[in-house]
Amino acid sequence: MTYTVMLAIDKRDGTYLYRQVIDLVAGDIGSGLLKPGDRLPSLRKMSQAVGVSVPTVRQAYIELERQRRVESRPQSGFYVRHRPTNEIVRPARSINGKPVALNCRPLMERVYDGINHPNLVPLGIANPCMAKPAAKALHRAMKRVMSRAEERSLNYASTLGEPALRRQIAYHYLDTTGSQVEPDHICITNGGQEALLLALTAVASPGDVIAVETPTYHGLLELIDSLGMLAVEVETCPEEGVTLSDLKRTLEEHAVRVCMFSTTLGNPLGVTMREDDRRELVGILDDFDTVLIEDDVYGDLRFDGHRPVPAQFLGSKARIITCGSFSKTAAPGYRIGWIVSDQYIDKIARLKRAFSCSSGLLQQLTLADFLASGDYSRHLKALRPVLQRNAERMGALVAQHFPRETRTSKPVGGSVLWLELPKSVSAEQLFDDAVAAGISIAPGQIFSPCSCYENFVRLSYGHPWGDQTEDAIRWLGRRVKELAEQ
Amino acid sequence: MTYTVMLAIDKRDGTYLYRQVIDLVAGDIGSGLLKPGDRLPSLRKMSQAVGVSVPTVRQAYIELERQRRVESRPQSGFYVRHRPTNEIVRPARSINGKPVALNCRPLMERVYDGINHPNLVPLGIANPCMAKPAAKALHRAMKRVMSRAEERSLNYASTLGEPALRRQIAYHYLDTTGSQVEPDHICITNGGQEALLLALTAVASPGDVIAVETPTYHGLLELIDSLGMLAVEVETCPEEGVTLSDLKRTLEEHAVRVCMFSTTLGNPLGVTMREDDRRELVGILDDFDTVLIEDDVYGDLRFDGHRPVPAQFLGSKARIITCGSFSKTAAPGYRIGWIVSDQYIDKIARLKRAFSCSSGLLQQLTLADFLASGDYSRHLKALRPVLQRNAERMGALVAQHFPRETRTSKPVGGSVLWLELPKSVSAEQLFDDAVAAGISIAPGQIFSPCSCYENFVRLSYGHPWGDQTEDAIRWLGRRVKELAEQ
Repeated sequence: MTYTVMLAIDKRDGTYLYRQVIDLVAGDIGSGLLKPGDRLPSLRKMSQAVGVSVPTVRQAYIELERQRRVESRPQSGFYVRHRPTNEIVRPARSINGKPVALNCRPLMERVYDGINHPNLVPLGIANPCMAKPAAKALHRAMKRVMSRAEERSLNYASTLGEPALRRQIAYHYLDTTGSQVEPDHICITNGGQEALLLALTAVASPGDVIAVETPTYHGLLELIDSLGMLAVEVETCPEEGVTLSDLKRTLEEHAVRVCMFSTTLGNPLGVTMREDDRRELVGILDDFDTVLIEDDVYGDLRFDGHRPVPAQFLGSKARIITCGSFSKTAAPGYRIGWIVSDQYIDKIARLKRAFSCSSGLLQQLTLADFLASGDYSRHLKALRPVLQRNAERMGALVAQHFPRETRTSKPVGGSVLWLELPKSVSAEQLFDDAVAAGISIAPGQIFSPCSCYENFVRLSYGHPWGDQTEDAIRWLGRRVKELAEQ
Repeated sequence: MTYTVMLAIDKRDGTYLYRQVIDLVAGDIGSGLLKPGDRLPSLRKMSQAVGVSVPTVRQAYIELERQRRVESRPQSGFYVRHRPTNEIVRPARSINGKPVALNCRPLMERVYDGINHPNLVPLGIANPCMAKPAAKALHRAMKRVMSRAEERSLNYASTLGEPALRRQIAYHYLDTTGSQVEPDHICITNGGQEALLLALTAVASPGDVIAVETPTYHGLLELIDSLGMLAVEVETCPEEGVTLSDLKRTLEEHAVRVCMFSTTLGNPLGVTMREDDRRELVGILDDFDTVLIEDDVYGDLRFDGHRPVPAQFLGSKARIITCGSFSKTAAPGYRIGWIVSDQYIDKIARLKRAFSCSSGLLQQLTLADFLASGDYSRHLKALRPVLQRNAERMGALVAQHFPRETRTSKPVGGSVLWLELPKSVSAEQLFDDAVAAGISIAPGQIFSPCSCYENFVRLSYGHPWGDQTEDAIRWLGRRVKELAEQ
C-alpha cells in the first residue's frame, strides 16, 4: 500500500517544523493510516510532500525512531514498528490527588509472600540483572578481594563506605553522564531501599506529605507509610513521566515536603522524562522550596545505553538527593546502594551510623574491583540487549494472548511491563489465580497509595527467558480472557 | 606471710553463711590484708577458723573464683588473683535520672572520626573478633558457597532471611543455652545496629522514653536520639549489672516505653547480670508492662564460655525482643545480625522490608555453612582465651602505668576495659591528645546521654596484641599522669 501524506505543514504554527512532521506521522500511525511494517516516504519525498527541508525530515524520523515508533533498516529507509499492542497513552488519573495513608497493606503482604516464593515463575519481581547474571565475573572479583584484603575484608567499612567504591561510582557518573560527583558526597547504603530510608528520614518527619508518581514503586509507598508520612500522587504519563502541570497544582494545593520521583527511568512505567522536562521539574521544585529524592536505580538500564543525567546534575544540587544501587544492575543480594547529596551528606552519614553502622565491606571491595576492571561496563553492554529482547518477546506474547483491549507500557529500559487489562478484570483475582498456578505477578493496586489500578498488573521480564516464561504469559492471557468474560 | 582470719562468722546474721565467707575474704583482699599471690587457708582450716562446714567454704571459694577474685591451682589450693588495679565497685551515679535528649553529639562525631581513622592504634572500637580473625575459615566457607549456589548467591534473600542461617542460629541457642527458638521468629538484619533500629521502631514512637544502662553503648544512644526518643539512665553496677531498685524507681517515676539493656554481657562494663537477677528484672518489666529490647551481641564472648541465657527465655517471651549479631564474634564487615521475637516478628519483618528489603544473601549462606560445619564453635573456643589474655595484659599495663587512683572494670568477657581516671583528668582532652599521638580511645561522655563520665575512658583489647598496643597503653598512662598533675 502506498502511503500518501494527507496534511501539509503549517509554517506559521509556533512549534518546530520537525515536531510537526513527528505529529503528522505519529497521527497517521495512531489512526491506522500507517500500519506496522509500512515504509515511510523517503526523506526527499517527505520533504517535497510537506514542504520542509530534508534535514528537518531526518531530524523528525530520528526522533520517531528514538521514540520507537519507527525503525530504520540499512539501505532501505524507515518503517513503522510492529508495536506489541496498544500502548497506554495517558495514565489512569490519580483517584483523588489528596495526601493519604497507604491502604493496600494486606494485599502487599500477600504479594510479597508470592514474590518471595522460590518455586513460582518470577514475573512479580523487578530483577533486571538476573536476566543475565554477572556471577562469574563477580565471583572472580570477590576471590581476588579475599586473597588481597584477607583479614581486612572481614572488618567494618567506614560509615560513608569504602573510598575505592565511592571513587568508582563518582567515575561512573562522570563517564556516563559527564557529571562531577565528589566521592565524599556519596554514602554507601544497604541497597537502594536503605538509601531511600536515609534520604527520606534526613529531610522529612512523621506527618509530612510526600509526592510520588502514580503508578509508583511499591517499596517507596511502604517506606513512606512505615515512617508515618502521607503520600500524594502526581499524574505520570507512560510516555513523558511526571506531568508538570499536575505537579504544580499538587504543590500549590498541598504542603509537600518532598517529591520522590524516578525521572531517569521509572518503575513500573519504564519511562525516561525528557531532559528539558526534568530541568523544568527541578526549577518548579526550586520555586516551591521542595526537596527532590530521585530514585535512580534503573538509570543504567536504558536499552539504548544512553544514560540519563540525574536531576541533581541539571540544576542547583542543593535540595536534590540521588539514590542509586547495584541491586538492579549487578547483584541484588550484595545489598549495596548509595546516596549522592551535597547539602545533606553529614546528616545522612549520622543516620547511616545510627541505623546500620556501615555496609558490607567485602561486597564494596568486590564492586570497586568489578567497576575498576571494566567488567561492570561490559556487563551492562551485554545485559541491555537481553532485557530489550525479553521486553519485545513479552510484548509480542501479550499482544497475541491477552484480550485485544489490553494496553501495555512501552518501556525504554528496565525489566517490567505495565499492563492495563479490560476494566472488568480484577488484578487481585488474577494474582491469586496466578500464584495458585505457580506464577507470581504484581497487581496494580500496590503501586498506588489509594489502591487504584485495580485492573492493572506489572510483569517482569528480568530473568532468563525460557519456555516456562512463555507458558506463564500464555496462561495469564487465557486467564485474563476468562475473567473478562465472567 | 601467713594470713589469719580476723573475723568470725555470725550465724545469726540473715545472709547465707557462704556469702559471709565471701564477704570476709573479699574484705581482706580489699583492705590489702590478703595480697595478690597469697594462698587462702585450706578448706579445712578456714572451716575451723570461722566455724562453718567445709562444703560451705568450698561454695564460697568457688564463687570467689567465679568472681575472679581468687584462682585455684591444681593440687595446691586457692590463691588471690593478681588484679590489674582497683576495680570500679559502684558506678558513678547517673547524673539526673530524668529522660533527656542526647547532648554529646559533637563529641561523638569527633570520636567516630577517630575510630574510623585507619592509621590509629584502635583502642577506641569494640571489635572482639579481630583479636583472632576467622578469615581463613570464613573465606573457605564463602568459596564453597559461591561454587555451590552460583548465580543464586547474587540474588535477593527473603525478608526474614535465609532459612538455613535462621535454623543454625536457633540451633546455636539450643546448643549453648538450652532455649528453643522458632526459626520463623528470627529476622536476619544488617548487623546488630539494624536489629536495634527495627526492634525499637516496632515498639516505640518519637517522644517515647527509653531506659538504658549507664554507662551504655553509644550506638544505642545515637539510635534513640535519631528516632526522636528520649533516654533515661538506670544505675548499673560493674559487678552486677542493672540495679533493680533503681530500675523500679525509674519505672515508677517515668512513663518508660522500652528498656534497652545488655543483661548477658554488657558494653562498656563487661558485666553479666546474675541469672536470678535477670529473672527478677523480667518480672519487674512484666509488672510495669514495659518492653525489653536486649542487646545480646556479646553473649557468646564470656571468657569462661558459659553462655548466659537471654532474658527472653527466662520469662514470658511476649514483650522481650532479643538482638544478636555476628559482628562481635565473627565478621563485622558481613553486617549480619538478627532479631528474635515472638509477638513482634510480623511487624519487624514489615519494617525490615520497608527499611532495607533484606540482608546480604552470600554472607548469610556463608555464615550458615560456618555454623553448620562447627567452625563457628571452634572459632569461639579459640577466640575467648585470646580475649581473656588481652584483657589481663591490658589490665596489668594499666595498673603499672596509670595513676594509682585509676579504677578499672573487671570484664567477664568481650573486648573492652572501662577506666575511671583521676577526677581532674578530662577524657575529652585525653582523646584529643591520643588521636594526635596516633591512638584512638573512646571517652566516657559518649556512653551517657547526659555526657557524664567526663573522667572515664573505654579501652579496647579486641585486636591482635602487639608492641604497638603496649606502647599505646604506656603512652596513655603517662599522659593521664601529666593531665592529673596539671
